[in-house]
Amino acid sequence: MKRHDGRDAAELRPISIQPDFLDTPLGSALITWGNTRVLCTASVEERLPPWMAASKRGWVTAEYAMHPASTDPRKRREGGKGSVSGRSQEIQRLVGRSLRQAVNMKALGPRQIVVDCDVLQADGGTRTASITGGWVALSIALNRLIESGAVGPQVFGPQIAAVSVGIVGDQVLCDLDYPEDSKAQTDANFVLAPPAGLIEVQATAENGAFSDQQLGEMVQMATTACQQIAALQREVVAAVSAGA
Amino acid sequence: MKRHDGRDAAELRPISIQPDFLDTPLGSALITWGNTRVLCTASVEERLPPWMAASKRGWVTAEYAMHPASTDPRKRREGGKGSVSGRSQEIQRLVGRSLRQAVNMKALGPRQIVVDCDVLQADGGTRTASITGGWVALSIALNRLIESGAVGPQVFGPQIAAVSVGIVGDQVLCDLDYPEDSKAQTDANFVLAPPAGLIEVQATAENGAFSDQQLGEMVQMATTACQQIAALQREVVAAVSAGA
Amino acid sequence: MKRHDGRDAAELRPISIQPDFLDTPLGSALITWGNTRVLCTASVEERLPPWMAASKRGWVTAEYAMHPASTDPRKRREGGKGSVSGRSQEIQRLVGRSLRQAVNMKALGPRQIVVDCDVLQADGGTRTASITGGWVALSIALNRLIESGAVGPQVFGPQIAAVSVGIVGDQVLCDLDYPEDSKAQTDANFVLAPPAGLIEVQATAENGAFSDQQLGEMVQMATTACQQIAALQREVVAAVSAGA
Amino acid sequence: MKRHDGRDAAELRPISIQPDFLDTPLGSALITWGNTRVLCTASVEERLPPWMAASKRGWVTAEYAMHPASTDPRKRREGGKGSVSGRSQEIQRLVGRSLRQAVNMKALGPRQIVVDCDVLQADGGTRTASITGGWVALSIALNRLIESGAVGPQVFGPQIAAVSVGIVGDQVLCDLDYPEDSKAQTDANFVLAPPAGLIEVQATAENGAFSDQQLGEMVQMATTACQQIAALQREVVAAVSAGA
Amino acid sequence: MKRHDGRDAAELRPISIQPDFLDTPLGSALITWGNTRVLCTASVEERLPPWMAASKRGWVTAEYAMHPASTDPRKRREGGKGSVSGRSQEIQRLVGRSLRQAVNMKALGPRQIVVDCDVLQADGGTRTASITGGWVALSIALNRLIESGAVGPQVFGPQIAAVSVGIVGDQVLCDLDYPEDSKAQTDANFVLAPPAGLIEVQATAENGAFSDQQLGEMVQMATTACQQIAALQREVVAAVSAGA
Amino acid sequence: MKRHDGRDAAELRPISIQPDFLDTPLGSALITWGNTRVLCTASVEERLPPWMAASKRGWVTAEYAMHPASTDPRKRREGGKGSVSGRSQEIQRLVGRSLRQAVNMKALGPRQIVVDCDVLQADGGTRTASITGGWVALSIALNRLIESGAVGPQVFGPQIAAVSVGIVGDQVLCDLDYPEDSKAQTDANFVLAPPAGLIEVQATAENGAFSDQQLGEMVQMATTACQQIAALQREVVAAVSAGA
Repeated sequence: MKRHDGRDAAELRPISIQPDFLDTPLGSALITWGNTRVLCTASVEERLPPWMAASKRGWVTAEYAMHPASTDPRKRREGGKGSVSGRSQEIQRLVGRSLRQAVNMKALGPRQIVVDCDVLQADGGTRTASITGGWVALSIALNRLIESGAVGPQVFGPQIAAVSVGIVGDQVLCDLDYPEDSKAQTDANFVLAPPAGLIEVQATAENGAFSDQQLGEMVQMATTACQQIAALQREVVAAVSAGA
Repeated sequence: MKRHDGRDAAELRPISIQPDFLDTPLGSALITWGNTRVLCTASVEERLPPWMAASKRGWVTAEYAMHPASTDPRKRREGGKGSVSGRSQEIQRLVGRSLRQAVNMKALGPRQIVVDCDVLQADGGTRTASITGGWVALSIALNRLIESGAVGPQVFGPQIAAVSVGIVGDQVLCDLDYPEDSKAQTDANFVLAPPAGLIEVQATAENGAFSDQQLGEMVQMATTACQQIAALQREVVAAVSAGA
Repeated sequence: MKRHDGRDAAELRPISIQPDFLDTPLGSALITWGNTRVLCTASVEERLPPWMAASKRGWVTAEYAMHPASTDPRKRREGGKGSVSGRSQEIQRLVGRSLRQAVNMKALGPRQIVVDCDVLQADGGTRTASITGGWVALSIALNRLIESGAVGPQVFGPQIAAVSVGIVGDQVLCDLDYPEDSKAQTDANFVLAPPAGLIEVQATAENGAFSDQQLGEMVQMATTACQQIAALQREVVAAVSAGA
Repeated sequence: MKRHDGRDAAELRPISIQPDFLDTPLGSALITWGNTRVLCTASVEERLPPWMAASKRGWVTAEYAMHPASTDPRKRREGGKGSVSGRSQEIQRLVGRSLRQAVNMKALGPRQIVVDCDVLQADGGTRTASITGGWVALSIALNRLIESGAVGPQVFGPQIAAVSVGIVGDQVLCDLDYPEDSKAQTDANFVLAPPAGLIEVQATAENGAFSDQQLGEMVQMATTACQQIAALQREVVAAVSAGA
Repeated sequence: MKRHDGRDAAELRPISIQPDFLDTPLGSALITWGNTRVLCTASVEERLPPWMAASKRGWVTAEYAMHPASTDPRKRREGGKGSVSGRSQEIQRLVGRSLRQAVNMKALGPRQIVVDCDVLQADGGTRTASITGGWVALSIALNRLIESGAVGPQVFGPQIAAVSVGIVGDQVLCDLDYPEDSKAQTDANFVLAPPAGLIEVQATAENGAFSDQQLGEMVQMATTACQQIAALQREVVAAVSAGA
Repeated sequence: MKRHDGRDAAELRPISIQPDFLDTPLGSALITWGNTRVLCTASVEERLPPWMAASKRGWVTAEYAMHPASTDPRKRREGGKGSVSGRSQEIQRLVGRSLRQAVNMKALGPRQIVVDCDVLQADGGTRTASITGGWVALSIALNRLIESGAVGPQVFGPQIAAVSVGIVGDQVLCDLDYPEDSKAQTDANFVLAPPAGLIEVQATAENGAFSDQQLGEMVQMATTACQQIAALQREVVAAVSAGA
C-alpha cells in the first residue's frame, strides 16, 4: 500500500543539505528534508560553560527553536515573554546528547561548540533533521579546527545520523511527515552511529501499546535509513573539505 | 558477578508503596524504591486546561519536582528565581504522556487529573518511581471517582508500570541506583503496560553505542521486572479499595 | 463553650514530630499538627551566600512552599511560570528570622544552614508548624555538627517554638485550624523562646480592631502553649541524640 | 538620656504631609517624616481585580517600592530584571491589609482603589510612613468619591495611623530613624485605629528576646504617638475638603 | 576617496531579495544586503491582538531577533532565560511603526499581520534591511489576500524602504557596513516612502554633534538611495505576482 | 492661529526645575514642564558595570519609569510581574545615549553615574523632560565631584537639552502636550548641544509622510527652543553651585 505522498513504507523523503549557508559560524548547514527545513550552525567558543570552567575537556551543547513562521498558523515566538517550552527543551537536550557522542571531548580541549538548530519550516521530523544537519555543521567546524591546527583529527568520534519511524494503521513507516505523524499509533526517533550502533532510542505509544517485535522492526528500518542518510552527510562534508 | 549492593543483574531494589499518605488529594502514594522516595498525588479538577476548554473528553497531566533536600548537597529550589529546569520538564512530559495511556479520556469526561510527583529523596530511578507511584495515586483517585458515581469503570485503560535498565561494564543490569547510573554506558527507561505492551522506550548511550541485541535484552529484563512491579501496584490499590 | 472539634479555648491540637524522615539532609522532621503536615529539613552548606562571602560568621535561611496537593482544590505550583508568591515570601522571611535567633552565628562559623519547610497538608497554622518543626530539624543538624567536631556546643542559642492564637466570636482561642481561621476577627502568630521570651509577634485585625488587653491575653495563651510545644521538641531531639 | 538627634524617648520626628502632590490620581500625599519621604497616591479603578470580578463589594490594595536613589548608595531598581523583592512584598501586603480596615467595602461598591507608596528617601520607618500617608491619600480620594455622589459617607471605616517603636540599649524608643534601627534589639511596627484599637502588631527580636512587659510598654508608646499622628492626618484631609 | 570596500560615498552595497523563501507564511523574503542577511516573513492572523479586540480595523506588528550565530563570536539567544533585549525591542518597534504606514488598516479589516525579521547574518544595517525586506514580505502577503478576495487593492498604502547613512571621518557615507559603523561619528537610519516622503528619521551622534547642514545632506543621500531600493522591491514583488 | 492652551506655534510650556529635591543622590532635580513632572536623580557609583569592569574610563547610564499614578487611569507598575516595557527601554536608551555626550568619560574615571528619570505626572514630552532634567541632576553631581576633588573640570562635555516638536494640522508646533501629541501627524524629539549642535533626531510619521522642508523647519524650531531651555538649566545649576 502506497503512502499519501506515494512513498513506500521504508522510503525516505528527499533530503538535501546546503553547507556553509552562513559565513559567521565556523560550520553551518541548511537541511531540507521533505518540507521540513532546519538551519543548523556550529559556533566555536574558546571558553567553557561556567559549571565546567576548570576542565581540560571540551563540551558540545545544542539549542533548538521553532521560527514563529515555521508553522501555519504562526506560532508565538518562544522566550519573548516567558521561558523556552518544555517541548523545545526536551528536543535540545536530545540533540545535544546525541552530538556529544560524535566528539572526543579530550581531543577537543577546553572549548565549547554550540549547535543552533532553528526550524524554518516544520513538516514532521524536525528533531531528527536537527541532529542530522547538526552533525554536518559540527563536522564542517571540526574539520576547520583541524585544518587550523587547533585540534587533532582524533577529535572525531563516530558519525551520527537520525531518523523517525512510526506505526500508522498497524504498519511500520519510515520518516513520517506531519499528516502521518498526527495519526501515528507509535512515534519513534532513532539516533544512530551507522552502520549499526544505537545512540538514542525514543519510542512513544500515542494510542495503544506496541510490542517488542514492532520495536525490533522499527530498529531495522531506522538502521537501513540511517545508512543512506549517513552517506549523504559524508558527501556534503567531504565536498566542503575538498573546496576549502 | 554480584552488584555493589549484592543484587543479581535482574534484581529490583526493595519497593514499598504507602497509599493515602495525604488526605487532601483524592489519591496519593508515597513510593519508597531503594533509597529513592517520591510522593505522588492525584488531584481531580472539575475543569479542563484552557487549550481544551470546550472538550467533552478529560485530560491527565503531571508535574515533577525535586525537593531541594532530596540530594546531598542541597539542590537549589526550582522556580524560586527562574523557570523549571529542562530536565524536570523532560521528565514531567514523560510521566504525563505515560499516565495518559492509563486512562480512557472519553470516560473521564470534562475533568482534569493532575499527578504531582515530588522527589523527597533521590538515589536513581526517580522518573520510573514517579510513573509507578503515579499510577497508584491515579488509580486510587479513579476508583473513588467510580465509587462516587462520577465516572464509570471503563475509565481505566491499561495498567502502567516503569523501570530503568542500563548497561554497566558491558553487563545489562536492572534498576540502577545512583552509583551505578553514574558509570552506566547506556541508560534506559521503560514504561510498560504489563504483561508485554511497550508504552515508552527511552534508551540513551552515555559512552559508546549499544546494539539492537542489547536493546532487546534490556526490553526483556524490563518486561519481567514490570510484571513484579505491577503485582505490587495492584495489591496496594486493591487494599485501599477494600478498606474504603 | 466547646470549639467545633471539641477542644477547650487554650487547647492545642495533637502534635507529633517524626525526626529523620529523610536521609539526605543532615537534619529533618515531619511535623503533624492536627491535619497540618510540614516536612522540615536542615541542609548544611559549607559556604555562605554571596552577599556575606567574606564573613567568618554563619547564616541560617529558610524556604517555605505549599505542595500543590496540600490543599483541596489543588493549588498551582509556585515558581512553575512565575515567582514565589508574596505570601510565601512573607512566611519564609518570618521562619528564617525566627530560626536565626536559635543559632550563635559566630560559633557556627562560615557555613550556611538552609531550612526547607514544605507544607504537605494545610489545615491552618502552617507557619507556626514550620518554625516549630524547623527548629527540630535544625537542632538535629546542629547536634550532628557538634558530634562531628565541626562546631562547639555553644552554637545553640535559645530554643524556639511557635503557635497561632486568634480571636473568634470575641473569644481568644489557641491554635486555630482552617475553619476557625477563616472566621477569625484577629489572627496572631507568636514565636517564643520558652519559657517567656518573645521572638516575634504578628497580630492582624481581620475584622475590627483588637485591644491591648486582648493582645495581652493572647500573649499569655501563647506562652503557656509554647511551653508544651517546647517540651515535645526537646524530647524528639533528645531521642535522636540518644539513638545516634 | 537624650537620643542621637536630641529627641526624648517618646518623641516623634517632625512630620509634614503635602496633599495633592500629583494631579493625575484622585488622591495623593507626599509625606515627609524626618528624612524619610514617601509619595502616596490613591487611584480609583472602576473595575475589580479578576479574582473577585463578580463581587458587589470593593477592594483596596497597595504597592510599595523603593526609588533607586532613595538610598545611598543607589539601590537596584526592582522588577527591572526580576521580581519584586520579598521585603517589598511583605511591606505592601501589610500596607494593603491595614488600609482595607479603613474602608467599608460594601459601601465602596465594585471598584478598586490602588494605593501606591513610593519611597523617595529612606531613613527608617518607611512602612509606617506609607500607611500613614496612604491613609491621607485614600481619604482624599474617598471624599472626592463622596462629593461626586459615587459613594455614600458610610464608606469610611476607622481612621488608620502607624508608627514604629523599638528597643535600643534596653530602652523603649518611639519612631526609630535608620541609625537607631540598625542597632535595635527589637523592632516593632504598630498600626492603630486611634484612639486605642490595634490593627496590626509586628514585633521582631533582632538580638535577644523581649518580654511581655516590654511589648506592653511599646503598645502604650505607639498608642500615644498615633493619637498625635492621627490629629495631623485629619487636619490635612480636612484642609483639602475645605479647599475643594 | 574610496571606502574600505571600494564603494563611492553614495554607493549602496549589492542587494538581492529572494521572495517566497518559506512556504508556511503567506509572504516571505530572504534579503541579502552586502553580508547582512535577514529572513522576513509576513504571517496573517484572522484575529486581532487583545487590546484592540473589538476593532474593525487591522493591525501590523513586527518582531526582530538576531540568530545566535549571526555574529562571530556567537551571541546568546534572546529570551532563553530572560526577556528581549532593549536594543531588539527598540528595533522591532521601529520596524512595526514603519510598516504600519504601508497599510490601510481600514481596508485590511479585523486581522493582524505579524512580520518577523530574523537576522541570520549581521554586518551593519540590520534594521533597514528588516524594513526593506519586511515590506516585500508584507506586500507579497497583501497581494495574496487581494487575489483571494479577502481584501481590496486599496489595502496598500505608500511603499516603504529604508537605508542607513552615517558620518565617518567627517564624510557623509551611504549604507555603512559594520566596520564603518563602528567608527562612525553619526549614525542615522531613514525610512522613506519614495520618491520623497520621510517616514522615520533617527540620527544619533556617537562622538560629537552634527549640524543641520549635515542632517540635510544625509536626507538627500537617503532619498536617492531609497529610490534605487524601492525599484528593486517593486521588481521582486511584481515577479511573484506574475508567477502566482 | 492659537493653540488649545493659547500658546503660539513656537512657544514652550512653562518650565521650572527644583534642584536637590532629594538628599540621598549626589544630584537631583524635579522638573515641572507644563503638567509633566519628572524626578531626575544622578547617583554616583564608585564601580563600573561588569561588562567594562577593567576600564579606566567612566560610564553614564539612565533608567526611565512611569510612576503608576502618573496617568489617569492608573498604569500597571512595570516590572511587578514582568520586564520593562519596550517603550520604557527605548526611552531609557535614548536618555542614556544623550547624557553620555555630556560627559568626558576619560576625565570621569572608573565610576558610573546612573540617572534615574521617574515620571510622576505625564502630559506629553516625558522623554525630553527626562533628558533636560537629567542633565541638571547630572551636572549638579559632576560639580560636587569636582568640588570634592574626585574629578577635574574637564569632565564636562557639551551641555545637553531636549524638546519635542510635531506637526499637527499641517502646522509645525513646538513642545506638544498630550492632547496635541494624540493627533499629531508627525512626532519628533530633538536632543541638542546648544546653540546649534544636533545630538539626536527622532522624527516619526504617525499619519502620512513628512517632507525634508518640514524636517528642516522642525530643526530650526527645536534649535531656538533649546537655547531658552539651556539658559534655564544653566541658571539652576549655577544657583546650586553658588549655594553649596
